[in-house]
Amino acid sequence: MNNGVKKIALLTGGGDCPGLNAVIRAVTRSAILNHGLEVIGYKFGYRGLYNNDFVNLNLENVSGILHRGGTILYSSNKDNLFDYQVEENGVKVKKDVSDVAVENLKKEGVDVLVVIGGDGTLTSARDFSRKGIKVIGVPKTIDNDLASTDVTFGFNTAIDVATEALDRLHTTAESHHRIMICEVMGRGAGWIALESGIAGSSDVILLPEIPYDINKIVDKINERKEEGKPFTIITVAEGAKPKDGEVVVSKIVEDSPDPIRLGGIGNKLAEDLEKIIKENEVRCTVLGHVQRGGNTSTYDRILSTRYGVGAVELIEKGLFGNMVCLKGDKLSYDSLENVIGQKTKNVEKDCELVKTAKAIGISFGD
Amino acid sequence: MNNGVKKIALLTGGGDCPGLNAVIRAVTRSAILNHGLEVIGYKFGYRGLYNNDFVNLNLENVSGILHRGGTILYSSNKDNLFDYQVEENGVKVKKDVSDVAVENLKKEGVDVLVVIGGDGTLTSARDFSRKGIKVIGVPKTIDNDLASTDVTFGFNTAIDVATEALDRLHTTAESHHRIMICEVMGRGAGWIALESGIAGSSDVILLPEIPYDINKIVDKINERKEEGKPFTIITVAEGAKPKDGEVVVSKIVEDSPDPIRLGGIGNKLAEDLEKIIKENEVRCTVLGHVQRGGNTSTYDRILSTRYGVGAVELIEKGLFGNMVCLKGDKLSYDSLENVIGQKTKNVEKDCELVKTAKAIGISFGD
Amino acid sequence: MNNGVKKIALLTGGGDCPGLNAVIRAVTRSAILNHGLEVIGYKFGYRGLYNNDFVNLNLENVSGILHRGGTILYSSNKDNLFDYQVEENGVKVKKDVSDVAVENLKKEGVDVLVVIGGDGTLTSARDFSRKGIKVIGVPKTIDNDLASTDVTFGFNTAIDVATEALDRLHTTAESHHRIMICEVMGRGAGWIALESGIAGSSDVILLPEIPYDINKIVDKINERKEEGKPFTIITVAEGAKPKDGEVVVSKIVEDSPDPIRLGGIGNKLAEDLEKIIKENEVRCTVLGHVQRGGNTSTYDRILSTRYGVGAVELIEKGLFGNMVCLKGDKLSYDSLENVIGQKTKNVEKDCELVKTAKAIGISFGD
Amino acid sequence: MNNGVKKIALLTGGGDCPGLNAVIRAVTRSAILNHGLEVIGYKFGYRGLYNNDFVNLNLENVSGILHRGGTILYSSNKDNLFDYQVEENGVKVKKDVSDVAVENLKKEGVDVLVVIGGDGTLTSARDFSRKGIKVIGVPKTIDNDLASTDVTFGFNTAIDVATEALDRLHTTAESHHRIMICEVMGRGAGWIALESGIAGSSDVILLPEIPYDINKIVDKINERKEEGKPFTIITVAEGAKPKDGEVVVSKIVEDSPDPIRLGGIGNKLAEDLEKIIKENEVRCTVLGHVQRGGNTSTYDRILSTRYGVGAVELIEKGLFGNMVCLKGDKLSYDSLENVIGQKTKNVEKDCELVKTAKAIGISFGD
Repeated sequence: MNNGVKKIALLTGGGDCPGLNAVIRAVTRSAILNHGLEVIGYKFGYRGLYNNDFVNLNLENVSGILHRGGTILYSSNKDNLFDYQVEENGVKVKKDVSDVAVENLKKEGVDVLVVIGGDGTLTSARDFSRKGIKVIGVPKTIDNDLASTDVTFGFNTAIDVATEALDRLHTTAESHHRIMICEVMGRGAGWIALESGIAGSSDVILLPEIPYDINKIVDKINERKEEGKPFTIITVAEGAKPKDGEVVVSKIVEDSPDPIRLGGIGNKLAEDLEKIIKENEVRCTVLGHVQRGGNTSTYDRILSTRYGVGAVELIEKGLFGNMVCLKGDKLSYDSLENVIGQKTKNVEKDCELVKTAKAIGISFGD
Repeated sequence: MNNGVKKIALLTGGGDCPGLNAVIRAVTRSAILNHGLEVIGYKFGYRGLYNNDFVNLNLENVSGILHRGGTILYSSNKDNLFDYQVEENGVKVKKDVSDVAVENLKKEGVDVLVVIGGDGTLTSARDFSRKGIKVIGVPKTIDNDLASTDVTFGFNTAIDVATEALDRLHTTAESHHRIMICEVMGRGAGWIALESGIAGSSDVILLPEIPYDINKIVDKINERKEEGKPFTIITVAEGAKPKDGEVVVSKIVEDSPDPIRLGGIGNKLAEDLEKIIKENEVRCTVLGHVQRGGNTSTYDRILSTRYGVGAVELIEKGLFGNMVCLKGDKLSYDSLENVIGQKTKNVEKDCELVKTAKAIGISFGD
Repeated sequence: MNNGVKKIALLTGGGDCPGLNAVIRAVTRSAILNHGLEVIGYKFGYRGLYNNDFVNLNLENVSGILHRGGTILYSSNKDNLFDYQVEENGVKVKKDVSDVAVENLKKEGVDVLVVIGGDGTLTSARDFSRKGIKVIGVPKTIDNDLASTDVTFGFNTAIDVATEALDRLHTTAESHHRIMICEVMGRGAGWIALESGIAGSSDVILLPEIPYDINKIVDKINERKEEGKPFTIITVAEGAKPKDGEVVVSKIVEDSPDPIRLGGIGNKLAEDLEKIIKENEVRCTVLGHVQRGGNTSTYDRILSTRYGVGAVELIEKGLFGNMVCLKGDKLSYDSLENVIGQKTKNVEKDCELVKTAKAIGISFGD
Repeated sequence: MNNGVKKIALLTGGGDCPGLNAVIRAVTRSAILNHGLEVIGYKFGYRGLYNNDFVNLNLENVSGILHRGGTILYSSNKDNLFDYQVEENGVKVKKDVSDVAVENLKKEGVDVLVVIGGDGTLTSARDFSRKGIKVIGVPKTIDNDLASTDVTFGFNTAIDVATEALDRLHTTAESHHRIMICEVMGRGAGWIALESGIAGSSDVILLPEIPYDINKIVDKINERKEEGKPFTIITVAEGAKPKDGEVVVSKIVEDSPDPIRLGGIGNKLAEDLEKIIKENEVRCTVLGHVQRGGNTSTYDRILSTRYGVGAVELIEKGLFGNMVCLKGDKLSYDSLENVIGQKTKNVEKDCELVKTAKAIGISFGD
């Protein structure tokens, strides 16, 4: 490249997310085919950077991976080299080992580090940028809660999986007159629950951003019965929570020391509702890790490819310290300082999508 | 019909199962188109028979339902009219109300009752047959554990759903070096776990019929590491259990009064393994009700249609008191007395499928 | 409503498109639940408006249709009431019967007409607006070629279907060393081919907007062979065409009077390539109508729901003569005059998505 | 092995078929894990055997392929070493080169050759068996038309794909009142059309084994209209044909020298019907190669695994010259002499499945 970049390195960090391989493929192909760059990939995220454990990436070994979930570079959770657990004199201590990483990059002649990850992984990316490393970020999370970008890759696949599950639960709810609860992922954000809830024809959607009143849910269930629909589908985000001071809830908490840890909010809600609703069986399904793996959706394959090619373009333009992002339908970028400096992106109570859901009669329990 | 049958009734009982609607459609179409019969469907299984709550079935209202999960006749669990809960003088008592059902059938002029259900529902069908009602049974259960038939409808759809989930978990296991546990349904039988486990490329399959030794599972995990595969997929039937006297297990039982009720065997196994395996994260997904609903698989649509047409043929031939069944690839029938008299069909430890699984290296923890 | 609107009518026109039912459901639910409006649906598009053939729409009959392809209101192609074929004195003549439609709307007390369709259907909508009818448009087409909106509903489902087909063709291409051609829909626009081509890992994408040189395709095939990949996937839009004066093409035209009519561009390309490439078999699959029907994708269910609710909001605000649209990720609107006055939206040769595709090595045959 | 077998070779021949990789994996794993055999795989079927072009197969390179369509050993069509095209003195001639193959097997020390293929490939397998080579056959074809086995692998995946396509066409047929024709594969046998036709809710199924009368199809279309269903789904096998002497058909043949080659029977039928049915549009979709590739179905993964393990068992028992097969739900075997000596397995006009289809009102045009 004109700006002297000859070799770049990739790493993938954090939880699994469909589209990681598509980004790796797009970065590698674009870097090699258009710019003749050398490309390596550190294995297991930052841990590989610390251990200088990497593979060469080429047209051959990024072939056939566009649609595949997971990451051919492997990943690890919570490996923060600025606060890394090492053993010294037989004792485990935490220390800043980021200089080792910088040294490794220098040793291998890596000019730019492309970091594919969510907020934890990108926080370290910003910190390496502050240390003078040329870094480009790519926004990854099924939760879609990263600031500065309208959409992260992996999100569309996650809501596809959740929606298909809701479709399946629907027929049973209808024919067996059940209250079916489906707990979906999303950590502290309600995006997966909101979008899959709408697409999966839910009657109630519970989000972390809108604490629920169980009585409002019961009202909805009863309202449906009066309309001749003695069944209800509830999509609940794993981070959803009841409003404070709710009697039914605190009673549950008395019975059992830590019901949420054992069962999650979906199971807790099922138990709560079973105490109130006598005529219907209540069942909860916790979707879990099927939302994170498997074949990548059409939408995410395209978005990931755009992000990968966009990352190489940022390198070409010398726009280091930035993350590629999507604004509307346009590819754009924002500084890692800005991305990490903000709070995570949450569902706003009166955003268009929540209002749309309410307009068609979906209750948020508020 | 030559044998005087003019009107038949259908009912669906027990848990949800893909293919119920396909059977309803096939019975109705075949009865009307070929024999000019009148067809009614009792709603909510035996409860509808008791309450004389039914709908007329015709070409119109069985249209468009071949592929749909659930049942347009609704279903209920555990409504046994021979031991039915009624209220007498304000007190709930259990009594035999089967005569009410017999009366209702007479009143509506129903000549034959077609009962679509699993062992509970078919036990009542046998009992009605003993009371002189002309009954035909159709074998329904996703668990495939019904005696006298090689395959029940619903089973193929269930293993399709479970296999797709395993495919999704696979990519995450591989890229994050995890032990992924997937708990599938099946009650006391291991069929779903066995077949989806093989199809989903599992390394370990745990069945109710083969109690497991956790140390054997750990051996398998370690053996895989030595082969360069530091991840393992475990498919566990909900009815699987450890061998008696295992230390690790009883310790868990000490810690918590009823861990199995709260989390199921999958979560218990995850906790047990996390105490032994330190280098890998262990994650459990409990698939739950997505295995019971949603679109019916190609195989089950065909099998259900064959069963439905076969049921009408049994009526035409006057072969009452029988259940349609599949023997090899041939449609056949067996008496309800015989079906119910036998134990449920379980996986045998040395059957061809278990031996096949072992031959390709799958561990059963034994 | 404050603005006096009490009753609205819907109609769906043009070819089939996943999401039609989702829009019908969202308009109906939102209109009834939030504004107490009366809602009717004309059957078979404008033909129903002409014949005053309609159904009342209510919460009951729009239930259970969110995910289903097709339209419960039926549709017809090419029924333009401003140039409508009628029989007069036994002779078929074309005439403007739009006044009959206006009369029917008046007779039924319809205040606003919501028209869901592509450019043909919306052109009539604009013409009714010019006649003083209060009209709201909703942009429908799998081709995504409608001006004024970034995305039409139905498009995402179409590319999902095409991508899945490409995934299937991929394994055969690879193991049998074939040139596999997949012809997708899109009329005069290349959007479906472009996006499914990228997502389906195509090596060559041929668009109506970028006439192709068959020699460039042959170059790509040979280039891949040299890289050790003796197979090639080609996604071709039904509207794609070779550059003028290409020898190979005119030769084909000599052989057969109208090969394109008989086989389409995909088959023509297959024949052309088979004359040049001797070592590989060439196979063409024309996807056809599977791209237009069946279950609606997650993305399209959400977009259609937003459009439906957005249409009712335009009514509430009195913004008649407009079409709802998507700008970036924001719901917006534009006047039907403006939408119809523009040319259809085509792929630009140097847009970001084409450049992205080229960056990862995809050839457009130019 | 006790019988002296130390090394085996695999090859895959003929058209693509989901499950090939699953068989390769099962044979390899079972041979290595249980018997310590050496395993090699010839590339491109018999061509690789002739050219001594092979790879070693081990636990590593058969990993991750269970679900994938295609074959890691590649395949070729129509490479018959007993009548093989070679160049001699610059002239292409056909000759028997099977001795070269036998020599190659000897040279590599291959004790047993496992041949995975359909009737063409297995005919050569029989011929090698006659020459004294120890051969085991595995029955592969999506067409399910191989004698001696109830089911071939690949068939279930093919009907899954066809059924999903029919589901998609259904919604469009219904909402646009169309006659939708779907042409599926199957060569001279009607199995794919019959089973996917039933599962895909077709109204008419046309098979090679039951020549059709177009007037009977028109009758069915009209009968449906009278029942209030002005649309019809027709599944037609690629080998289906009209009865002799039909006027409409011969007229078409006059118009165009070879319409069937250009368009296939589905398109021909569409043209024929359009001349008779004026009120409905007729559309034909030719599914093509999507039926042959892509992810293998759950059923086929299990069946292929059983076949692979079964093949190794036949080797262990010294049962050479046989093909593994499925009889009912039992794994069995039959001699290649017997398999090849019979005609292909066709649908019988009065078999249970055809009668089942007719019982629910499906027309076969006869």
